[in-house]
Amino acid sequence: MQYFTDTDMGLDIGLVNLAVESAFADHGRGLVQMPPKLYITLPSGDFRTMPAYLPSLGIAGVKIVNVHPDNPSRGLPTVMALTVILDIATGQPVAVINATRLTDMRTGAAGAVAAKYLAPKKEIVLGVIGTGKQAEAQVAAISRELKIQSLKVWSRNPDHVRKFADRFMEYPCLSVPIEKACDCDVLVTTTPSRSPIVRNEWIREGTHINAIGADAPGKEELDPAILRRAQVFVDDPAQAVHSGEINVPISQGMYREADLAGTLGEVVIGKKKRASRDTITVFDSTGLAIQDLAIAKIAMQHGRTYELPFL
Amino acid sequence: MQYFTDTDMGLDIGLVNLAVESAFADHGRGLVQMPPKLYITLPSGDFRTMPAYLPSLGIAGVKIVNVHPDNPSRGLPTVMALTVILDIATGQPVAVINATRLTDMRTGAAGAVAAKYLAPKKEIVLGVIGTGKQAEAQVAAISRELKIQSLKVWSRNPDHVRKFADRFMEYPCLSVPIEKACDCDVLVTTTPSRSPIVRNEWIREGTHINAIGADAPGKEELDPAILRRAQVFVDDPAQAVHSGEINVPISQGMYREADLAGTLGEVVIGKKKRASRDTITVFDSTGLAIQDLAIAKIAMQHGRTYELPFL
Repeated sequence: MQYFTDTDMGLDIGLVNLAVESAFADHGRGLVQMPPKLYITLPSGDFRTMPAYLPSLGIAGVKIVNVHPDNPSRGLPTVMALTVILDIATGQPVAVINATRLTDMRTGAAGAVAAKYLAPKKEIVLGVIGTGKQAEAQVAAISRELKIQSLKVWSRNPDHVRKFADRFMEYPCLSVPIEKACDCDVLVTTTPSRSPIVRNEWIREGTHINAIGADAPGKEELDPAILRRAQVFVDDPAQAVHSGEINVPISQGMYREADLAGTLGEVVIGKKKRASRDTITVFDSTGLAIQDLAIAKIAMQHGRTYELPFL
Repeated sequence: MQYFTDTDMGLDIGLVNLAVESAFADHGRGLVQMPPKLYITLPSGDFRTMPAYLPSLGIAGVKIVNVHPDNPSRGLPTVMALTVILDIATGQPVAVINATRLTDMRTGAAGAVAAKYLAPKKEIVLGVIGTGKQAEAQVAAISRELKIQSLKVWSRNPDHVRKFADRFMEYPCLSVPIEKACDCDVLVTTTPSRSPIVRNEWIREGTHINAIGADAPGKEELDPAILRRAQVFVDDPAQAVHSGEINVPISQGMYREADLAGTLGEVVIGKKKRASRDTITVFDSTGLAIQDLAIAKIAMQHGRTYELPFL
């Protein structure tokens, strides 16, 4: 059994995007096994358990990932992850992978796949709400699929925008009020908000939105009126209803699962698409175990490893 | 993060029984978080993902365990397991544990707890159907809770009974036809059978049965008529309906979840008990993640460890 650490080292973002796109295609064709992730609540956070099997890649395993919002005050990341990979033929554990950074990358990759297929054009003004690790991962991944003309970034803390801009020197990067960030071609929302922070009147026709932040019951970033105006695509319907951007509007009777336009997998395989140039499209990302397996497959070809006895 | 290997080394069976009994007590009091295990089907087997949180022990984590019946022909165990333990306060992975042998021990411990509370008397004739690792684990664990007068063992292969007897030289051990093995005080069934092998007319009043073998949809060892005569206690109702001894009878309309007498946890806390000396009692074991956490807690105080970098 091998232990992989620091596995983001040397991973090519374009390759990760492609692997995640392929996993979504398999999902769209119904070729994967992936029950909805299980949540366990801990006193100051939670952890999620995400098993899956991706036959086309010949990979099966489980990601275990926590969310502890107070961790930064202890000098620890909010989110940490470990992925266990099993041999398909025998079920034997063959790898344990530190998947903390991989989790950021694979979520970025899902956003990039959504933007590639759903953005209104190929050269975009990219609006960014929030400036944490996931905002960074989204911009890095989307930049491989679309040409970014400029970044319009909002954070509660303007210092954070300056630091964010320093990481993307290759693009004009404006620190703007939140409503100005929404005036863009592709908007990514990456906050842990529990009430809508993006108002309906700020979103113009044709915008594509990656709604990334909501990943647990009670979380939401978008005014539900935006969802009702838009074609909403989810990564996985069961997970999205439970914990995605649509979870609060659905629980309040302001949105119905039947209103969904489809899944990202269906978009990737061409079964579903943006209805028109003026349509607002939303990708509601909760994070799929198959994304974790797709990136694990790449990570196992890189990364520093330790050999561990198992049998 | 620590990796623990060979963690059965030096574990005291009595201590394991006690920890598992305490976990069942917490389960009976509703003090644990444990969603039903998730099954993923692989081409020649399956794997199960089992997250849980046991506040009283301050332990949280996930066991991942496969079942591949053809593995012995490849020189591998049918069942292999890995447990990941997270820090409660921060969610950080703190331990990865080789849990293959621990899985046998903790299932044995559940059988011992059931026999301790449900056996008709303290000195018993123990009937054993099947002679694999789990049969051995059941006898070893039960011997710590009850006085075994003799063992009556059946296997399709008499050679296996001889080898089994060699492991328990301290008891008279008879190789018997299956119906004679059923003529006992406590019967343990540990086969992978997919049709009933224990007939109703072989079971006399007052017998306690640990039904261990059925742990996946389609598996069953007991004539459903035995279940209808008996008080049936399960480890967890949701798991038992899905994959325990009762799963086939329920799916065929020959048993109902409402017929269950209760859970082992309820028995341990005194809320439920054997109705009379003549009642047949059945413990339907599917295996709980909280058993895995209880034994992991002990294993982490023993076993050989490797220190791995995580952050």
